[in-house]
Order: sequence, then C-alpha cells, then structure tokens
Amino acid sequence: MEDILQLIKDNRYTDARSLLLQKNEVDVALFLEEIPRERSFVIFRILPKDFAADVFSYMSPEQQKYIVENITDREIQLILDELLIDDKVDFLEEMPANFVKKVLKNTDENTRKLLNQFLSYPQHSAGSIMTIEYVDLKKEMNVKQAISRVKSIGKDKETVDICYVMDSNRRLEGVLPLRRLILSEEDNSVEEIMDRDIIFAHTLEDQEEVATKFTKYDLISMPVVDQENRLVGIITIDDILDIIEEEATEDFQRMAGMEPTEEEYLKTGIFTLSKHRFTWLLVLMVSATFTGNIIKQYQEVLESVVLLAAFIPMLMDTGGNAGSQSSTLIIRGLALGEINTENTFEVMIKEFLVGLTVGVALALVNFLRLYFLEKVGLALSITVCFSLFTTVILSKVVGGILPILAKRINMDPAIMAGPLITTIVDAVALMIYFATAVSLMNIK
Amino acid sequence: MEDILQLIKDNRYTDARSLLLQKNEVDVALFLEEIPRERSFVIFRILPKDFAADVFSYMSPEQQKYIVENITDREIQLILDELLIDDKVDFLEEMPANFVKKVLKNTDENTRKLLNQFLSYPQHSAGSIMTIEYVDLKKEMNVKQAISRVKSIGKDKETVDICYVMDSNRRLEGVLPLRRLILSEEDNSVEEIMDRDIIFAHTLEDQEEVATKFTKYDLISMPVVDQENRLVGIITIDDILDIIEEEATEDFQRMAGMEPTEEEYLKTGIFTLSKHRFTWLLVLMVSATFTGNIIKQYQEVLESVVLLAAFIPMLMDTGGNAGSQSSTLIIRGLALGEINTENTFEVMIKEFLVGLTVGVALALVNFLRLYFLEKVGLALSITVCFSLFTTVILSKVVGGILPILAKRINMDPAIMAGPLITTIVDAVALMIYFATAVSLMNIK
Repeated sequence: MEDILQLIKDNRYTDARSLLLQKNEVDVALFLEEIPRERSFVIFRILPKDFAADVFSYMSPEQQKYIVENITDREIQLILDELLIDDKVDFLEEMPANFVKKVLKNTDENTRKLLNQFLSYPQHSAGSIMTIEYVDLKKEMNVKQAISRVKSIGKDKETVDICYVMDSNRRLEGVLPLRRLILSEEDNSVEEIMDRDIIFAHTLEDQEEVATKFTKYDLISMPVVDQENRLVGIITIDDILDIIEEEATEDFQRMAGMEPTEEEYLKTGIFTLSKHRFTWLLVLMVSATFTGNIIKQYQEVLESVVLLAAFIPMLMDTGGNAGSQSSTLIIRGLALGEINTENTFEVMIKEFLVGLTVGVALALVNFLRLYFLEKVGLALSITVCFSLFTTVILSKVVGGILPILAKRINMDPAIMAGPLITTIVDAVALMIYFATAVSLMNIK
Repeated sequence: MEDILQLIKDNRYTDARSLLLQKNEVDVALFLEEIPRERSFVIFRILPKDFAADVFSYMSPEQQKYIVENITDREIQLILDELLIDDKVDFLEEMPANFVKKVLKNTDENTRKLLNQFLSYPQHSAGSIMTIEYVDLKKEMNVKQAISRVKSIGKDKETVDICYVMDSNRRLEGVLPLRRLILSEEDNSVEEIMDRDIIFAHTLEDQEEVATKFTKYDLISMPVVDQENRLVGIITIDDILDIIEEEATEDFQRMAGMEPTEEEYLKTGIFTLSKHRFTWLLVLMVSATFTGNIIKQYQEVLESVVLLAAFIPMLMDTGGNAGSQSSTLIIRGLALGEINTENTFEVMIKEFLVGLTVGVALALVNFLRLYFLEKVGLALSITVCFSLFTTVILSKVVGGILPILAKRINMDPAIMAGPLITTIVDAVALMIYFATAVSLMNIK
C-alpha cells in the first residue's frame, strides 16, 4: 500500500490503479480511510465503477458522505447503480433526507419503489437487512433449465450458492443449493431434488431472532417472506456476522450502564462518549444515596462501634460481585436462547443453592480470618460473617431473577445487570448488617 | 413431533421414521434430547445411517456419549464413517481416551493418520476447527475439466461453493467460487478466472483471529495452510458463528469475575457453578479488606465526624461504575480489533477528558444536592464532591488502561474488567476522601 501512495504522489495514476485492482476491496476501503481525504478521493475516482462500488460499500458512513458530497451527480448514479440493493439501503439510511430524495428521483421507477419499500422496514427487522439479489427457480423446471437460468441471471446476484424455488404465485416452496443442482442428472425436476423443510424469516421478524436461527441451523442464507408467504428477499450470512457482534456489543454496553452505540470507540468524540455514560452514572449516584441514608439512620450505632465501618466496603463489593456473576450468566443465557422466561423458578432455586454454597464458604473463610487472625471480637466477627452470608444469597437470587423479570415485561434484560443490582444489594446488605449488629452486640 | 412420539409409543416405527426424515436434522437432534433417553435411543437406531450421522453431529456431548455406550461397535463405525472429519474430531475430543483408542483402531490407516493429526492441533487453533472436505483444482485445468472434477468428488464435500486451486506441490495459488465456474466459458482456464488475492489462515493461528478475518472480509470459508504454504484444510462459516458467540460468552463471564465455561447454565450443576464463581469472589473479598484497612486507619477521623461514613457507598459505587464503563468499552474494542495496544496513550487522554467532563457534571449535581437540598456543611460538601470528581477521573483512566496493559503482556484483557478495577478504585477513592476530609475539615 506504501508503493501505491508513492505512485499517486508521483502522479502515476495508471500504475496505482492496476496495483489497487489486485487488492481485496475491504483492504482498499481501509487504505482510503487512513490516508488524507483529498488524496483518497483522487484514488477513488480512478477506480473502475464496479470495483469502486464494492470499495464504497465497505467504507464508513463518514467517508461515504464525503465522497458523495464531492463527486458529480452522474458519478454518484454510476456507483449507486453498481451497488447491491442491501448495500444501497445501508448507505441511504445514513445519508441526509434531501440527498436520499435526490437519489430516488434519479433512479428508475422499479428500483425507486423497491428502495422506498426497503427503507420503510423498521430498523433491526429482517426486512431492513435483506437483499433481493437471489436466483429464483420454478419447481416445474428440470435441472438443465435451472442451470441455464442460473447462468443467465446469476452474474448480478449476491448469492447463487442457494437458489429459491417458488410456485406460480411467488410463494416459497423449496430451497436448492447450487452444488446439488450441478451434481444432479439433467432431466431431474427441480421439485424432486429441492429441500422442502425451509427455515425462513418474516419481513418484520427481529434481526436477533434471525441470527439465532442462522446459528441453530448452520445456514449461509435465509429466505424472507411477506404475510402471504411470498418470497421478497434473502438474508446472507455476512450481515448476520455483523449483527451477532453488534448485539453482543450492545449487551456489553448496557450491562456496564451505558447507552449502546454502534460507533467505534476511537472514532467517537469526548462529548458523545461522556453523554452516553452520564445518565446512568447520575441515576446510580442518586440511588446510592439511599444506601447512604441507611448509614445515617444507624449513625448512633456506628458512633458506638466505629470499627463497623471498616467492613462496609467488603460487604458491598462482595455482594455486588456475587450479583453480577449471576446476572451476567442469565442475561447471556437469555440472549443465546438457552434460558427463557419459563425458567424463572428453576433459576431462582439454582441461584439460591449456589448462593448458599458460595455464601457458607466465603463466610467461613472470613470468620477464620477475622476471629483467629485479626483477633476481632466474637460478636463483631459473627455480625460481619452472617451479613456476608445473607448478602451473597440475596445477591445471587436478585441477580438471577431481575433479568428474567425484565424480559417478561419486554424490557432489555441487559439493563438489569451489574450497576442496578449492586445498588439494590448494597442497600439491603447494610440494613441486614446494622440490624444484626444491633441485636448481636448489645448496642444502645 | 408430538405425533412422532405417539407413533413410537404405538410401536409404529416405520411411520415415525418417514415423518422424522422430513424434519431438519437440527430439530431431530433437539427432539431426541428432550425425550427419555431409552426412547430416543430406539428412534436413533431406526434412522438411516447418513441421516443418523447428521443428527448425531448436532447432539450434545452427553447424548453422544450415551449413544456410543449403548450401540454396537459395528453401528458406531457406520455412523463415524458418515461424519465429516471436523464433526468427527469434535466428537472424539469429548470422548474418554480409551474410547478414542478403540475408534482409531477400527478406522483405516489414512483416516487414522488424519484424525491423529487433527487431534494434535492445540485447542482454539485454526487447525483444530478445520475440515478436509473441500474440492481442490489444478490451475492448468479448463472450466469443463474443473466442473467434471466438482461433479465427481463434490458429493462428500462439506463445501463445494468455493474451490481451491493448487500448484503441483499442493501450494495454494488461488480460490474459485463454484458460481464463477458455472458462469464461465468452458474453455477458459482455471488460472484465468481464479482469485489470487487469498485470505487464509495458518494451522496454529488462534480461532479468534480467524473469526476476525471472516467478519472483516465477509467470507463463507477460508483455506488453512501449513508452514510450507501447502493447503491442509478449510474452515467454514458455521463453525465461525459458534466461535464468535463462544468468545463473547467467555468475555462476559471473565468480566463478571467467573471462570469461563462453554456449558449451558441450565445444564450445569450447583457445585460446578459455585466452583466457577468462588475463586474470584474470594480473591476480591480479601482485596476488599485492604479498603477496610484504610477505613480502620482513619478510625479517629471517622469517630469525630461519623457522617463521613454515609458517603462511602456513593463514592465507591460511582467509582466502580465509572471504571466498568471504560473497561467494558476498551475490552470490547480490543476483542473486535477496533483498538490495539498502540492506542494506549490515545485511550489514556480520551478517558482522562471523558472523566473530567463526567466528573465535573456529577460533582456539581452532587454539590447542589448536598449543600442546598440536604443542608450538609460546606466543608463536608466540598470534601465529598472533590473526592467524587477525582475518583471518577481516576476510575476512567485506570479502567481504560488496565485492559490494554493486560493485552500487552499477553493476558486476557477481560480479566481486568469490573471487579478488579472496582477494588483498586475503592481503595484509592477512600484514601483521597479521608485525606481531603482531614485537610479541609480541621479534624484532629
């Protein structure tokens, strides 16, 4: 890539062009993002239109915006014509409304109708991520006719590895891998060799559910049908990979108390980063004052045994950690479809028993350390360890159940993770702690 | 599926069999997991061997183990013969050593050599997840010869959608999608139409790196080469989907302070769950006593102003949350390859500035609430808010940098997440808090 940059600097554009054409489109797109924009713009313009369109589809929205703002309308149209419909929709979704209007005005009527339809599917629905570049066959065709159809219309299609078989009303009847078509006798009918057991999605189905089906059935593409079961598009595995990573990233961000974003960290500004983090920090800071109020309430207890304060961090941290462990496992299990809302009771029992086991072990270790090693008084040692024990059980149960309850009322379980559970557990842990102290240590 | 179960109960096995054969192998495998083992075993045995092998490959290791323990050696061999090499390796990896030995003894020499080689690749390496069922072409072939090779050897191959072109020493020279082969003129040579810009993996490369390449270049399969650049296998996208979800799950578990496991939550026993959680809880509990020791050290300060204790939970929670936000973003960025170790300084500056912004805002809100709403004294209000401000900045910077430093010394960044950072931040936050209190409030 260094060589190419040098060639450009030396105005040897033809040489640069032929070197670039040997590279992968993804790498060319990344290369163009890293060099100064004016230069990348010159390079982009000398690429042949079909290659340029591929490179364009791999660029970041910012880079795409820069390019369309600076090339002529005619050039934009040439590139857009080469883009696959799903890449075109992705691109238009990121552009300002007046630009989209201009583009739609300049496309032929059929494409315009299609683009409008695609742009109207709700975000994150199967319809919004599908493409229409697939090969459709009729079940009455024989293998020879089917192969010749693949040959005649396959060039512009995103995937011909799997063909879709429809009846006369465009209703989906079967799927047929290209490899089976090639390996079959020429006079077999398509109907004889196709798979009837089709895994498909509806246009309005959530992309996360679609991704789960891809993983479950090891698919590389999936047909999308409308309300009348007519084939309207297909979803390909490359988009699913991105969705799986996006959804996991979203959960990571929600679980750490942030508003989720798809923007890359290094490309996000200080203000945006701060904004995404501030709301939850504020909410949690204010709720932590409840915990503070509990301490205030027991101020006199604390005055008589100030040493009680020394064990507050350990109780709070252990409770928080125990709760996070449980909520993380449950949230991930829900996301992967391994746990569902029917398992509420099972999870509760399981977390209670795990809490009991871990709680006894931790309390025991702690008692040995406090009473024998640090020579803390017996009453205080028992108070600390009993509180620890109940806090751990409580954290486990609350951490296990809250995400499932959230799912039940159609909230994102990831919001019920660490931070919120910590706040709840802290408050209850301190109440138990002081109440135990009062009754065990004869305070007041 | 209900009908099938009824048919089995009525001993109408032939009817049950023909119904099952219309289902997807994944669904049949799930169905067999859910019904009583004795019954599932009967059903499994009446399936034709090629279908049974597919179903077998989708079963859980426990179910596979149950089946091989109860069917005859002859039947095991029949099923194993039908399994693709990567599914065979997956299965053998889960079985006890003496069973593997018996299986290897009963396979022909070539397969045995191959299985031994595959079983010897390190876990999580490209070699351990690859398969050898691919179609290889020679670059001197023309399109007609290539298609007839696909037809003659393609039946048993896991993927023929992409063919691999080698020179006479089996060195990989190009890749050729089946669709392009079909769409090309018969007398074109393979060399003319193949792609030379190959994205490939080495046998010992980590599966996470391989997955990143799949996402980056939108691949559906990837060739794997040995040290001499000879093609030894391919990796297919279905395995990569599983790996991406596994790696994310592992990160979720590590970040919540648990030993990672691939076992599903509902299938894991209480003792195993407790064991995975106990170690980190213990480590973090003991480190939290350092925080407690800081409080002990400032016991006299606390005795003179007991109210100081009431703000400890808020300081600790906010610091912990602020740190988790940063570490989560950085760990995820590292996992997706969006951030790398060269960005250490950039991340530090960015987190410092975000900490400054968020810290000022939070401290301000808190000051207004404390001084004007709760009528807390000026000195105490300033002490709390100043500590909050410095704690937030510190948490952000520590949370941002620790994961990158971990990566630098080849540790898993996910270990440096929430729990550990919380413990560090808690200790420092309390030191700042008490030190500020002493100097601002004229204590002692």
